[in-house]
Amino acid sequence: MSTANMQLDRQGRLLHFLTVEGLSRRHLTEILDTAESLRGVAERRVKKLPTLHGKTVVNLFFEASTRTRTTFELAAKRLSADVLTLNIAHSSTVKGESLLDTLQNIEAMQCDMFVVRHQQSGAAEFVARHVKPHIAVLNAGDGRHAHPTQAMLDVFTIRRHKPDFSVLQVAIVGDILHSRVARSLIRALNILGAADIRVIAPRTLLPAQVETLGVRVFHDLRRGLQDVDVVVMLRLQKERMEGALLPTEQEFFQRYGLTEERLELAKPDAIVMHPGPINRGVEIDSRVADGPRSVILEQVTNGIAVRMAIMSITLGNHARPTGENS
Amino acid sequence: MSTANMQLDRQGRLLHFLTVEGLSRRHLTEILDTAESLRGVAERRVKKLPTLHGKTVVNLFFEASTRTRTTFELAAKRLSADVLTLNIAHSSTVKGESLLDTLQNIEAMQCDMFVVRHQQSGAAEFVARHVKPHIAVLNAGDGRHAHPTQAMLDVFTIRRHKPDFSVLQVAIVGDILHSRVARSLIRALNILGAADIRVIAPRTLLPAQVETLGVRVFHDLRRGLQDVDVVVMLRLQKERMEGALLPTEQEFFQRYGLTEERLELAKPDAIVMHPGPINRGVEIDSRVADGPRSVILEQVTNGIAVRMAIMSITLGNHARPTGENS
Amino acid sequence: MSTANMQLDRQGRLLHFLTVEGLSRRHLTEILDTAESLRGVAERRVKKLPTLHGKTVVNLFFEASTRTRTTFELAAKRLSADVLTLNIAHSSTVKGESLLDTLQNIEAMQCDMFVVRHQQSGAAEFVARHVKPHIAVLNAGDGRHAHPTQAMLDVFTIRRHKPDFSVLQVAIVGDILHSRVARSLIRALNILGAADIRVIAPRTLLPAQVETLGVRVFHDLRRGLQDVDVVVMLRLQKERMEGALLPTEQEFFQRYGLTEERLELAKPDAIVMHPGPINRGVEIDSRVADGPRSVILEQVTNGIAVRMAIMSITLGNHARPTGENS
Repeated sequence: MSTANMQLDRQGRLLHFLTVEGLSRRHLTEILDTAESLRGVAERRVKKLPTLHGKTVVNLFFEASTRTRTTFELAAKRLSADVLTLNIAHSSTVKGESLLDTLQNIEAMQCDMFVVRHQQSGAAEFVARHVKPHIAVLNAGDGRHAHPTQAMLDVFTIRRHKPDFSVLQVAIVGDILHSRVARSLIRALNILGAADIRVIAPRTLLPAQVETLGVRVFHDLRRGLQDVDVVVMLRLQKERMEGALLPTEQEFFQRYGLTEERLELAKPDAIVMHPGPINRGVEIDSRVADGPRSVILEQVTNGIAVRMAIMSITLGNHARPTGENS
Repeated sequence: MSTANMQLDRQGRLLHFLTVEGLSRRHLTEILDTAESLRGVAERRVKKLPTLHGKTVVNLFFEASTRTRTTFELAAKRLSADVLTLNIAHSSTVKGESLLDTLQNIEAMQCDMFVVRHQQSGAAEFVARHVKPHIAVLNAGDGRHAHPTQAMLDVFTIRRHKPDFSVLQVAIVGDILHSRVARSLIRALNILGAADIRVIAPRTLLPAQVETLGVRVFHDLRRGLQDVDVVVMLRLQKERMEGALLPTEQEFFQRYGLTEERLELAKPDAIVMHPGPINRGVEIDSRVADGPRSVILEQVTNGIAVRMAIMSITLGNHARPTGENS
Repeated sequence: MSTANMQLDRQGRLLHFLTVEGLSRRHLTEILDTAESLRGVAERRVKKLPTLHGKTVVNLFFEASTRTRTTFELAAKRLSADVLTLNIAHSSTVKGESLLDTLQNIEAMQCDMFVVRHQQSGAAEFVARHVKPHIAVLNAGDGRHAHPTQAMLDVFTIRRHKPDFSVLQVAIVGDILHSRVARSLIRALNILGAADIRVIAPRTLLPAQVETLGVRVFHDLRRGLQDVDVVVMLRLQKERMEGALLPTEQEFFQRYGLTEERLELAKPDAIVMHPGPINRGVEIDSRVADGPRSVILEQVTNGIAVRMAIMSITLGNHARPTGENS
């Protein structure tokens, strides 16, 4: 059974959220619509819903990430769940028995949801394949493979500003090769029918046959930004510098850094996004990051609503009698 | 006043849970019966009871233990308590003033229960002797001395499969010498009137005069397993290898490892237990650990119900007017 | 705008709690009276109030402090808030963009209160200047500058024993130079109209022009203790020893350590305070610390009520329509 299919029950409802691959526009729209209705919760005086009261959500973080962990923790708490965060030693491996033993022990504690972050691709899927059917598994980033909740908060943020995907032009700029964010976002945009998805990067930071993902490739930032509605800047990881993949940070900024002047090439009402944390002066100029077109902090806010939505939907589907993963 | 007596009030009710030593069959049965009624909570849609709402439970962990800490934390949260976990530096000592100052400070924050884990024997008792009378103290493992909540979850798991202790034959296999689990379990089984308790180990891994605990000693695994109802395998700590107490892991497995073939010597419906985490291929073969007779993961599940029971009982006894520890 | 003024709204109500400097006796009395009414909560069977239900309190700890962090965490939980604790790497600096980016990300998660502890003076004020107006900021200690919640719990403890500040004589003993506790306490006592505030220390441990804070300076412990109502001992930080500021610990104790015999010089009903953790035998003798006049553990208990009061007051003022910081 493919990853895409294993996250759905027989009626095609979401039981896990491992990847956007293989999901339909209906699945994504359900998440976006639910997130829209939940977004208001955080603006109310009492920022809590009883949806997951009495449920136990376990954050299984094999890879450190304060930001992502925190938003999942807040999302779960605002749905009234009990939250357990386990920062697991990096020594555990996906294939090894020790990970499986850890999983089985935690599931024996009668938990309801695992949020998994791991440096190895396929880790969340591995977990979903091995846990008991009543447990929902969410992928909070696995290796270079996927970061589907980030992709959903990105398209949620886009939709709030540019509701019609059929005319949408998006440019994704920077280290596409190592970015699970880019990979998941490209898929989500294609599923939602985005008109034009561009990736802008040097050859050394592009995966082989990237065009097969359904994107147009640009090596020149100025040409790629022409008339887009959305610019998504990716974080440049400094480790990559040493791998000889890249010239210096300065040179990268000169060729691919987003400045106010370059942003002029996009549509006048274009928005600027970044999954964070930003490297000021490396991939983005501070004036752009803090400027009127930046929706970077909106993305953070939306991330909680989107994660609340995915938690509610997947656990809700587990509760239904026919929702069992058999 | 002995440890055994100091955990009871004048009416003989449990105020702390430090050791099974000195408790009566009535005490243990009360815990088991309460755990039985609480076990269902984790299977309900809303896995919470209001029993400890507004109470503060403090996990004082001087020794790392994700598994034990997590089950206590979940037990407290499912009883609606506020939980505070303090991982305290190993430098604090049981006798030193610094531990006492730490304790007094935390109790001044008006906490209701201390769950204590410490590498020194007697630590939980030390804490119980020094905290204010309204605080309940639970021993979550102290040195080589005791691990009484583990013993209770073990006998709880046994009772669910083999309700009649008067005909029960149990074999405990492996490193008895360093095991607080074994020590507590032997006492609990004796109190509950188990018919036959056997320890199976090489001489180097047995305490002096182990027979005085009320067990029969075997050095040969095959002879010891003959017709038992329950096999409890202990974790072999790799540090022991270096202490020249032991031959290699391979040799240990050859002589004392539990395999499917050896398990045939036990009763046909015998169950296999292990306090976890298991060392596959050292003390237990994977086919046994994952096989149909293994109740190892049930032990984890039961651990939460048993800890909820002990928390409810001890705090309940503190609330009674005559329950004061005077 | 001064720190003092920026923590008040136009009607002079507390929006943040950054320093006692610039506050009026009315502000301090409101906190003390509210804390008095909240002190009873911790003695009830259910130690919780719904005041902050649905609010998110974030502990931003740039400097480790288990004790202070724990009391803030308990205060927030007893007011039913959701609590998030972030132990942030010491590398973040107050002026650097990275701290600002961290702050903006956390505030984008729709939090309601930041509790800030930082080794640099002015950090909490920096945070308050940069967060969105709906967020309340509490200073949990910034560099050598201030520790205003500690000062409030100190004056709260004093008032419960010595209600009339107009006749109150207080001696603060030890390392005044490096103590944010001393600085904040001296200001609070002056605002409340304490009759006589003395500092007792060697010259090397006094700030320049300390008299301008409104205190009388003594270098001799015996003379300084004469007839005081309250003795506040400060923690001597061992790092100071190496800086040549001090003779040995033994010599310090000989000259400035509080013993039973020296305490005889104070009023017969004088109380002894210490912000903790105490160095037994360095600044205070154990017989005094544990003696009948010590209110050191009462201070810990009061700390929770005082922090609950400050949390309730500042968030309550944010909720009012005219409370906006404009």
